[in-house]
Amino acid sequence: MTELDIKMRTGLRIKELRAKTGLSQESFAWGIGMARTYFAEVETGKRNMSLVNLERIADGLGVTLTEFFDSELFDK
Amino acid sequence: MTELDIKMRTGLRIKELRAKTGLSQESFAWGIGMARTYFAEVETGKRNMSLVNLERIADGLGVTLTEFFDSELFDK
Repeated sequence: MTELDIKMRTGLRIKELRAKTGLSQESFAWGIGMARTYFAEVETGKRNMSLVNLERIADGLGVTLTEFFDSELFDK
Repeated sequence: MTELDIKMRTGLRIKELRAKTGLSQESFAWGIGMARTYFAEVETGKRNMSLVNLERIADGLGVTLTEFFDSELFDK
């Protein structure tokens, strides 16, 4: 697996955590007041997201940023 | 201490980790190919930085993103 860039790894982590909430992309995005298309592009690694949007998503996922980045996706 | 926003907390964490490198803002920014003024604004919480810039800075600090966010600044 080639080294995935930070946008892809972040998208994968969001998708992983969102799956645990049982929410669809649409419901999750609606819940945090984020456009569904933008959120879909974040999950597929197409967006170079900002800190503020990252925290909005982590809050919506119910995790702290410490928990969000506590993953093998980010420990190398 | 009122709840500092994510930009301020990230800036504080960068400053804390940069201090351990012993590098000035100017040398550190030069080392990662980032404009000194932009980096200075990141450290003072004035910039809503992107994931890619965040990873560039973490790489320059010699920490993974897991280590970067493993701080009480981000665990609430």
